[in-house]
Amino acid sequence: MAKQNIAAHKSWLPDANHPTTDFPLTHLPYGAVAVEDQQHLCVAIGSHLLDLHACAASGLLPAALTEACQAPTLNLLMSQGSQSWALLRKTLTTLLHADVKPEHKEKAEAALHSIAGSTFQKPVHIPNYTDFYASIHHATRVGQLFRPDQPLLPNYKHIPIGYHGRASSILVSGEPIVRPIGQTRPSAEEIQPNFIPTSKLDYELELALYIGKPSTQGTPVPISHAADHLFGISLLNDWSARDIQSWEYQPLGPFLAKNFATTVSPWVTPIAALEPFRVPAASRLATDPKPLSYLHSAADQKSGGLDVALEVFLLTATMKANKLEPFPLSQSNARDLYWTPAQLTTHHTSNGCNLQAGDILATGTISGPAEASAGCLLELTRNGAQPILLPTAETRTFLEDGDEIILRGSCESPGHHRIGLGECRATIHSART
Amino acid sequence: MAKQNIAAHKSWLPDANHPTTDFPLTHLPYGAVAVEDQQHLCVAIGSHLLDLHACAASGLLPAALTEACQAPTLNLLMSQGSQSWALLRKTLTTLLHADVKPEHKEKAEAALHSIAGSTFQKPVHIPNYTDFYASIHHATRVGQLFRPDQPLLPNYKHIPIGYHGRASSILVSGEPIVRPIGQTRPSAEEIQPNFIPTSKLDYELELALYIGKPSTQGTPVPISHAADHLFGISLLNDWSARDIQSWEYQPLGPFLAKNFATTVSPWVTPIAALEPFRVPAASRLATDPKPLSYLHSAADQKSGGLDVALEVFLLTATMKANKLEPFPLSQSNARDLYWTPAQLTTHHTSNGCNLQAGDILATGTISGPAEASAGCLLELTRNGAQPILLPTAETRTFLEDGDEIILRGSCESPGHHRIGLGECRATIHSART
Repeated sequence: MAKQNIAAHKSWLPDANHPTTDFPLTHLPYGAVAVEDQQHLCVAIGSHLLDLHACAASGLLPAALTEACQAPTLNLLMSQGSQSWALLRKTLTTLLHADVKPEHKEKAEAALHSIAGSTFQKPVHIPNYTDFYASIHHATRVGQLFRPDQPLLPNYKHIPIGYHGRASSILVSGEPIVRPIGQTRPSAEEIQPNFIPTSKLDYELELALYIGKPSTQGTPVPISHAADHLFGISLLNDWSARDIQSWEYQPLGPFLAKNFATTVSPWVTPIAALEPFRVPAASRLATDPKPLSYLHSAADQKSGGLDVALEVFLLTATMKANKLEPFPLSQSNARDLYWTPAQLTTHHTSNGCNLQAGDILATGTISGPAEASAGCLLELTRNGAQPILLPTAETRTFLEDGDEIILRGSCESPGHHRIGLGECRATIHSART
Repeated sequence: MAKQNIAAHKSWLPDANHPTTDFPLTHLPYGAVAVEDQQHLCVAIGSHLLDLHACAASGLLPAALTEACQAPTLNLLMSQGSQSWALLRKTLTTLLHADVKPEHKEKAEAALHSIAGSTFQKPVHIPNYTDFYASIHHATRVGQLFRPDQPLLPNYKHIPIGYHGRASSILVSGEPIVRPIGQTRPSAEEIQPNFIPTSKLDYELELALYIGKPSTQGTPVPISHAADHLFGISLLNDWSARDIQSWEYQPLGPFLAKNFATTVSPWVTPIAALEPFRVPAASRLATDPKPLSYLHSAADQKSGGLDVALEVFLLTATMKANKLEPFPLSQSNARDLYWTPAQLTTHHTSNGCNLQAGDILATGTISGPAEASAGCLLELTRNGAQPILLPTAETRTFLEDGDEIILRGSCESPGHHRIGLGECRATIHSART
């Protein structure tokens, strides 16, 4: 049964059938590649990309999807809703399947390019970026650092906590991160705050949930319909300057500590590719409150979680110079999130707030129950108190100039092809003083 | 001297010369009007609007500005920078001046329409919306309600506090506000929060600062250059559900309490029209810290403030039925803000965050030092403890269904035409339960 399932999804591209590829035929994540002075949409297959603009031009795609597939970003496709998404996915699956018609294969081959030599750009125009706080393990451990007597605030288990991030400064994997300068809290001896490059630059391991079908202002999305609005996911690194954050965030939340840059991975995994990796919502303690009825559906509790294994790696300049492999900082899994993607979507619209095609709802830092599964350095080093020792004998409390952070994610389930989310990576450049 | 100045700015439209008009020749605010199924940019003059799309079509505007003036929103003009803004303003001033060439006047008359019969739309595509907290009087009085021992947090006088609002749900004056539903804090006897229509719906009297010229990610805007990026201002009402806010805002700030709707006025006053109304930055107490050097310039301290008188009116359904005038709730002035527009702009970019053409930087609630100059009901009624008695014998702690809130603003200075910002108004509709 399991082998049959895998055999049924064989591509005519040999390396798409290799068990370790991120991009088998069952995945087909969307990206955007630079082609001369244009940006073309594409899907990844094995070690190649298939140029959708070229496919549409050679008549391989349904006419109704031509405009969406020849646009520079996914937004038009996203806004068209799940029937269009399913039609395109079915067409591309047939086109890249081992049983493809020879005349179609020939045309598709002309639209194939190696991923290795390509430059990827942001595949989505992101109108709005919301960042949630959906990992109870992250919220608890951060709370322990700053409020040891009450690590988890009274609202946490009732309401998905979130805030608005900055959409303008979202970058795609590979673009450098310039260390931000900002105000930090004056010490007891100082009268004025300092205005200096952050010395507590951190990453945050997150998933981006991309909204497809928009919602109407004034009309909440019931939890039973939330899935209709979710187009796909990618990796997201919510860079954070902890010293700036701790000084500025009272009483209105994080601002300059976060909005200098956020990095997304270049590939958007369609939600349909994640169906085999759906799991129950994370189990709550018997003493936990039940979600309020607007946040509860039996179907969501049964299969609203996503089993996405996540990893963070650090590659310092010294490690690069010595050709060492990236050092694994931690592993966690999106299945441990306290709130499901559907709950986040429904909560966001419950007051009538409208969602737009291309919006990102980020999960917040994804940490697991174990200390080694923390999704940021604030947790891993206990706000700098416990430095990490690297194989080069270097130590890290927070990020140094030249450090590269690499996020990876993947899904595995018996009887199904493994899929990988690709990489979300960026290197820290020194502050411009 | 004063009379000469006013006489020099005489328009051939008689009502533009009336001393009480909001829209004399020295103002020329930009708007967007519905024309069949299109949206045309326009300027207000007296009781009329001048359609810029039509003006460009009849050759009245410089060719270099045609595309920007025939676009549905101001964003292209905004992004072109201050030389383009000055060129257009000079052209329109000449066109509407009493000394206009007769052949130009004839063409302009064909592009004139009455404001009264027109439908106005959002004149700007707003990519990002930031809300500051720049009134120390607001921050102090809100702090007194919730932290009587420490009303003003230690960071307030050092750093302009701000957070990201929701850009997708910004409406233009006249569009209804649907009362939001949300979670509110459980009482001591309750186990679960309530999920009900807010019973503490409030307005916030603010100014929107519209960014014109964008800034580059990674490159802060020095305070000496901040003025180059500011295109204009309008009125803004940051609707707030205080009961939702108090339950959700820890630890990441306001979210659903604010993002259901924000209202902007239809007219964007160009910053050039505000030059006669520039005033020194609000004076600080001798014991206050000096702004850090990146937030300080002598020119900004001397003339970085804006003397904009602001008013809030309430019109209940009963008052409407009895044809009563709107009831004045409070008056304040933007000159009392602790931080200037240039300081807000520079601070926002100081960490490398980029600004985009059309972004709004809102001031936060503008309250004055007197209790009667509070810019929201939270302050005016002390969180509902002191109801307001209306001429109809109705009382209000927070807003009821059917209530209309009207914001107005104006600038006056000896020897100059008065200008008015128009109105920002909206009526509360009942929750959709």
